[in-house]
Amino acid sequence: MSGGLVIIGGGGAGISAATRARRVNPDIPITIYSQERRFSLSVPAQYDYTTDDRNSDGEMHLAREWRDLPDNIRVVSDSRVVRIMPEEKKLLVENRKRKAARSVRYDRLIICTGANPLRPLLPGAGLDGIFTMRSIRDSLAIKLYFDRYNPTQALIVGGSFVGLEMLENLREYPHVITLAERAPQLMGEALDADMAVLIEDYLRSRGINVITNCEAVGFQGEQRVSRMLGNSRDIDCDFVLMATGVYPNSQLAKDAGIELGCDNAIHINNRMETNIPNIFAAGDCVTTFHTVSGHHDYMPRPSTALKQGRVAGENAAGGDAAFKGAIGTAILEVFDLEISRTGLCEKECAALGIPCVTHKIKAPTRPTYFDTVGEINIKLIAEQNSLRLLGAQIVGNEGAGRRIDMLATAITLHATMDQLIDIDAAHAPAFSPVWDPLLEGMSRF
Amino acid sequence: MSGGLVIIGGGGAGISAATRARRVNPDIPITIYSQERRFSLSVPAQYDYTTDDRNSDGEMHLAREWRDLPDNIRVVSDSRVVRIMPEEKKLLVENRKRKAARSVRYDRLIICTGANPLRPLLPGAGLDGIFTMRSIRDSLAIKLYFDRYNPTQALIVGGSFVGLEMLENLREYPHVITLAERAPQLMGEALDADMAVLIEDYLRSRGINVITNCEAVGFQGEQRVSRMLGNSRDIDCDFVLMATGVYPNSQLAKDAGIELGCDNAIHINNRMETNIPNIFAAGDCVTTFHTVSGHHDYMPRPSTALKQGRVAGENAAGGDAAFKGAIGTAILEVFDLEISRTGLCEKECAALGIPCVTHKIKAPTRPTYFDTVGEINIKLIAEQNSLRLLGAQIVGNEGAGRRIDMLATAITLHATMDQLIDIDAAHAPAFSPVWDPLLEGMSRF
Repeated sequence: MSGGLVIIGGGGAGISAATRARRVNPDIPITIYSQERRFSLSVPAQYDYTTDDRNSDGEMHLAREWRDLPDNIRVVSDSRVVRIMPEEKKLLVENRKRKAARSVRYDRLIICTGANPLRPLLPGAGLDGIFTMRSIRDSLAIKLYFDRYNPTQALIVGGSFVGLEMLENLREYPHVITLAERAPQLMGEALDADMAVLIEDYLRSRGINVITNCEAVGFQGEQRVSRMLGNSRDIDCDFVLMATGVYPNSQLAKDAGIELGCDNAIHINNRMETNIPNIFAAGDCVTTFHTVSGHHDYMPRPSTALKQGRVAGENAAGGDAAFKGAIGTAILEVFDLEISRTGLCEKECAALGIPCVTHKIKAPTRPTYFDTVGEINIKLIAEQNSLRLLGAQIVGNEGAGRRIDMLATAITLHATMDQLIDIDAAHAPAFSPVWDPLLEGMSRF
Repeated sequence: MSGGLVIIGGGGAGISAATRARRVNPDIPITIYSQERRFSLSVPAQYDYTTDDRNSDGEMHLAREWRDLPDNIRVVSDSRVVRIMPEEKKLLVENRKRKAARSVRYDRLIICTGANPLRPLLPGAGLDGIFTMRSIRDSLAIKLYFDRYNPTQALIVGGSFVGLEMLENLREYPHVITLAERAPQLMGEALDADMAVLIEDYLRSRGINVITNCEAVGFQGEQRVSRMLGNSRDIDCDFVLMATGVYPNSQLAKDAGIELGCDNAIHINNRMETNIPNIFAAGDCVTTFHTVSGHHDYMPRPSTALKQGRVAGENAAGGDAAFKGAIGTAILEVFDLEISRTGLCEKECAALGIPCVTHKIKAPTRPTYFDTVGEINIKLIAEQNSLRLLGAQIVGNEGAGRRIDMLATAITLHATMDQLIDIDAAHAPAFSPVWDPLLEGMSRF
């Protein structure tokens, strides 16, 4: 009997792959092996659960995306794939309850094992009260801890996306919130320092204790954590969130002889094929082609995972699709500040040896006669000679962040910086000043 | 003595022209003749004044844009240009107080006379309580009328941008609000009927009495209006806003022998030159090149006026700039519904003989586990064979409207419909579902 299409992992990429494969081929058997008991939400969605009473409600765990799953996709939950045997086209699968592993066949395989949070092996890292944030389980554990101990000194280690997103969820609880970042700036992988400093200033104005140049080297406490030891200073804390990044879950693939790329993510081509025939991979465990830099990068993003899963599913089911790549577009909201970015930073261009020019724009978000007027700061990066747009960063209020999509569109379509002024953007007083901030800025370019 | 650069009109286009001219040429004398006592706000901004106590505050009338005006631009307010004499390069100018007209010289002239609201000459149209909405004066008059008579049956004649924008400003006052539109659909010049019906349904759900297929043919009342006579039915009302569109203020230009184009707007080339040497025009009084249809159209928009003014100012001051055109992008908010559009409608394509395909998307604005989830409806129009994107319409909640900028960017950069899925748009739960509505829709395309 044929094994059909087997997908390892029931996250965004896996579900997207299954759904697409079924659409392309109504007959192929499709099986998803998931370690979870139920499908997972996208990662950022889970932050909100930390402060949310709906955690106990199983129904809430099924985002709309997953409810649409066709019936004739078999989902084997609570099951862990422990080995891939490409020569025999077989997998070894362990069930959480029945421990004995059994072998299952596949014709085509898609690896969607996702990523895990980095948790540096520091002295004292096993103390109670030190968490990471990736799954619903993490959310629930944090919530339980807060309910039980009511911590008053929260520390977030790592000033990037997860760390900043979690700030907002914590603000109702502790008396003191500290954000410790080992680099000299926040969001070092996403923004240039001149934009990141705006975030730092803003967080301080909101009462967050921001400490840069401070790397955690250990923790102290009796049973529960009470202090972080840093390379530059120590910080008292009775709750710690380690938000120092994620790493791709690629060990299973590596053990099967699948080639890894940057950051040990699974290396794939634009059809989402690995180097081993009939094995595809997609989502937070794979590399992504960066269409601006022309390099493969590790850029785990929910929307990218879904697109990759879709392409892997189509191809594994006999279709012919290509994933063109991504440009690292991301957005996040912290209190009432919106932060977004796309393409390359100035410092990335420098590292890649791409000569570039930058243009910075600072404007109100709406006409200044409004009672509430926010600010928008935009940084544009373009190739020096051609002026081809390479990247953009935005820090601002009320709708500022969302403007990144216009710039991501322009970059994807190879626009030059001077073409931006030709774009007929929408104007209404509630949405923007007559001179759209972007256009106002460009008119001075 | 040289007359330098003279600009007729102190609105957005005029100010933009003056500012740019000064930047390009620091020495040229620049004079603006304005009928107003002070600079005007952009038109849509004035709606908000109807219900706003700040009307009496002169300071508020100066939007940020105008406060930036360089000092060495001479502004002659309260002055009306009554004749242009191109052969002599002279103008005849009347001052509101000193009635005698005087003649002034110009070397270069920019006509920025704007537009006026259409006010059909109907029986009874002179009754008290019938208003149009274009200037601060209109806002003040409406406010005065409301304070004095406290009308309880408001009628808006015309279901397009101005009419819909004003709905929101009226809602605090009258007991009954009726919107009468002569066409079978609302916003006929901006949207296809299948999208407009969403707005109609929404307005009804908000208690607005929407009546289509009803054209005003007259008004009744004693001193004050008490009833609108319609071609299909009559409507009781003690306040009427005529919002049936605007016409370009082009009579002055026409009398001087300047060629007019569609809708009697001043015809200009891409340098914003009229057919008469040394005379430029910009803003709501001119035609605009529609870059998708390839035709000149009458599309008065604040943002377009500013861009045109900028080009006219640069060229009149000796520079060399081109205005590439516009695609009719517009956005408006009514209660919590956002409406936006860009490019061509399906029916415009039909009228132009362009074979097209359409694709409609309906999606939640955020993941469905949020308490508040809005809806976004998108209609895309593409050329049949090439799939080149021609237009888009959006009706939805919470940030839906602003997505039009991404599509306007794609249209300006000649994207095809199937390229949209390659755009790496930003995702965060607060902003959109993982499958961005646009991408989700495209993945089913």
